[in-house]
Amino acid sequence: MRAVVLSVGNELLRGDIVDTNAAFLTRQLSQLGFQVERVEQVGDDLTGLTRAVRSALEAAEVTLATGGLGPTQDDLTRQAIAEAVQEEVREDPGLVAELESRFAMMGRRMPVRNRQQALLIPSAQPIPNPNGTAPGWYVVTNGRIIASLPGPPGEMQPMWNEWVRPHLEELLPERPAMLSLMTFGLGESAVEERIDDVIHWRPDVTIATYAKSAGVEVHVTARAATGAEAAQLVEEAEAVLRSRLGDAIFGTGDDTLTSVGGRMLKQQGLSLAVMESCTGGELASMITDNPGSSSYFQGGIVAYTAEAKARYGVDAAVMAAHGLISAETAISMAGAARREFQADVGLGVTGVAGTEPVEGRPPGTVFVALNAADGDEVREIHRPGRRGIVKDFAAQCALDLLRRHLEAALRQAV
Amino acid sequence: MRAVVLSVGNELLRGDIVDTNAAFLTRQLSQLGFQVERVEQVGDDLTGLTRAVRSALEAAEVTLATGGLGPTQDDLTRQAIAEAVQEEVREDPGLVAELESRFAMMGRRMPVRNRQQALLIPSAQPIPNPNGTAPGWYVVTNGRIIASLPGPPGEMQPMWNEWVRPHLEELLPERPAMLSLMTFGLGESAVEERIDDVIHWRPDVTIATYAKSAGVEVHVTARAATGAEAAQLVEEAEAVLRSRLGDAIFGTGDDTLTSVGGRMLKQQGLSLAVMESCTGGELASMITDNPGSSSYFQGGIVAYTAEAKARYGVDAAVMAAHGLISAETAISMAGAARREFQADVGLGVTGVAGTEPVEGRPPGTVFVALNAADGDEVREIHRPGRRGIVKDFAAQCALDLLRRHLEAALRQAV
Repeated sequence: MRAVVLSVGNELLRGDIVDTNAAFLTRQLSQLGFQVERVEQVGDDLTGLTRAVRSALEAAEVTLATGGLGPTQDDLTRQAIAEAVQEEVREDPGLVAELESRFAMMGRRMPVRNRQQALLIPSAQPIPNPNGTAPGWYVVTNGRIIASLPGPPGEMQPMWNEWVRPHLEELLPERPAMLSLMTFGLGESAVEERIDDVIHWRPDVTIATYAKSAGVEVHVTARAATGAEAAQLVEEAEAVLRSRLGDAIFGTGDDTLTSVGGRMLKQQGLSLAVMESCTGGELASMITDNPGSSSYFQGGIVAYTAEAKARYGVDAAVMAAHGLISAETAISMAGAARREFQADVGLGVTGVAGTEPVEGRPPGTVFVALNAADGDEVREIHRPGRRGIVKDFAAQCALDLLRRHLEAALRQAV
Repeated sequence: MRAVVLSVGNELLRGDIVDTNAAFLTRQLSQLGFQVERVEQVGDDLTGLTRAVRSALEAAEVTLATGGLGPTQDDLTRQAIAEAVQEEVREDPGLVAELESRFAMMGRRMPVRNRQQALLIPSAQPIPNPNGTAPGWYVVTNGRIIASLPGPPGEMQPMWNEWVRPHLEELLPERPAMLSLMTFGLGESAVEERIDDVIHWRPDVTIATYAKSAGVEVHVTARAATGAEAAQLVEEAEAVLRSRLGDAIFGTGDDTLTSVGGRMLKQQGLSLAVMESCTGGELASMITDNPGSSSYFQGGIVAYTAEAKARYGVDAAVMAAHGLISAETAISMAGAARREFQADVGLGVTGVAGTEPVEGRPPGTVFVALNAADGDEVREIHRPGRRGIVKDFAAQCALDLLRRHLEAALRQAV
């Protein structure tokens, strides 16, 4: 079943606010199994808004609108819906009484302009709003549904959860199941090349790839008559995807490289320390974004110069022989971090985040290294781009090196 | 002149990401003086996307599209535009060569499917993308303009700033002049209270406030027949705004607390070092986001535990007497950072970024301190919220302490 989401308000067209309502509702609708056809942000303008409602009614069985239900002249969603479905608005005595009692509870007399919040059309029933003055509309007409909700998320979300969502669930013939596999180390096109045939496996299973700030997400949605059947389809797809993508997969759902690394460090009872040059603190900051990181993260040092690196234990002879931007220095930094903080695992990052070559190494060249009791690992990366992009990618690569090391340790332990 | 913004990608219709691109572009367009008719988020579906492009061309002179320019089968924006304007795509040899050399720089062979990123139509010219493989399209046809940009903001925004925006400015009948004043230390409503009357000064000058991750931006746009007249209006507005907002203003335009601090450190020939606890590396990372930071940033230490802090010079007696989360420990950390790295200025940050109180201090309590030859400064902050919010705000407060210190030094030197 198809859906369209409309967000109403001039502030959305001026970029004064980001439309988080649309993100909330599209996610909810997708999880229910609706096919969201499109989202539209429209201004407080009756002609444009009426056009948008009409066009939504043509495109989808269900239209969800937020915003434009306030008491001012700018609040035109009720009128636009009435025009689109060609019905007349009338004041509903029950809603007037409710609004008046709401204002009485606040010790105020209801302003005249709030009476427009008591308007209804014949095919609409009011959706209660426990957190504000604007009731919603649930319109059922000609096989189409329009749910109109107020814009403030603190009012809209409870109305969705308690009223609209349960009503919409009854309309659906199929139950959905979903899964996200998170990968790192392959580009989006490389991921797609590996799973090309799986993507077109069957029509009731949708598989799509998304480039994320760290790696590529592979998202699976299946629909079936029962939830169990849908889950079974997702499970079958997962098995094939895992066999194709192998250890590029680092987790599922909301997993990040830092949360996955943190979980394995805790499981294995290991502690971590870092020494960074070109990432300038971002690797430590990513690690400490993870709640509970203080239980395994011992600390970090940001050292640009050879002197600072040597002061914290990086081998001066190695730096002199191989340069600051080298695999050998990255390894020495990882070992120095481990010793400085008496940690089980050390990570070291050195590279060129600026726009000029350093020691003959082009911008975007980075070495990430890991040192642990059983030895060293190092990787050379080339990622040209803005400073922030290089820093970010280099820090993610260091976290990926860590999680692969910890996965290997887990496999050996089994 | 009217504009429509299209955002392309199934992930927007599943609510996996919030559409910040639309917020960015609608804001930019409004500031330039465009009337944004609507925003639409559409999926990776050729029919729906082609309809959206056609409908945008009917509604507005300018269409800005983001997303759908990647190398996969899901990336259909190029084809949709071609269908909407009824032209044939062809591979552009120059773009193929550029893509191949980009992959060669990364030490990889270009996957075959990336060739679709080298497609053009006769009425399109490519928009260079210095930060990714997808060039944009700038289509001029039948009195209409379509600018198609990649979805990742780190690629899209530089392409907008450096290429699309200057081209669009030439279309406008009036010349705009703009100014952003960046403030830190006042909430958005406090800023608005101070400048309430200025906001309604005159119709050809628009003044708006925007809450940013660091502080509040006050944006001024003036429109006039000539650029000089518009600039004069902006200048008059600026003088009044500066008198109202005083030293809350830390810069203009793209200035950040870290770029402003860096500029003043360079001017004054001073170096900087940091020691962080609750910000976990984010302060150092913000400092090193600034190009050229290696000339003044000596380094940083992330130390959670009392042992680690003491190892790098924090006074154990101070920590024992006042606790780790205290003004005194923050000051001792700032001094220790300064000594460890032989820097002129040291910053120290300690606080509670997690959800549980520490040493009786509630979550969101942070102390930021500065140590320099002429003494210490310290500030106590209370900013409850998610871990990331506390970290971010605390790091910004430390940078604000630094820039106020450096501004005072400059005033004394004058």
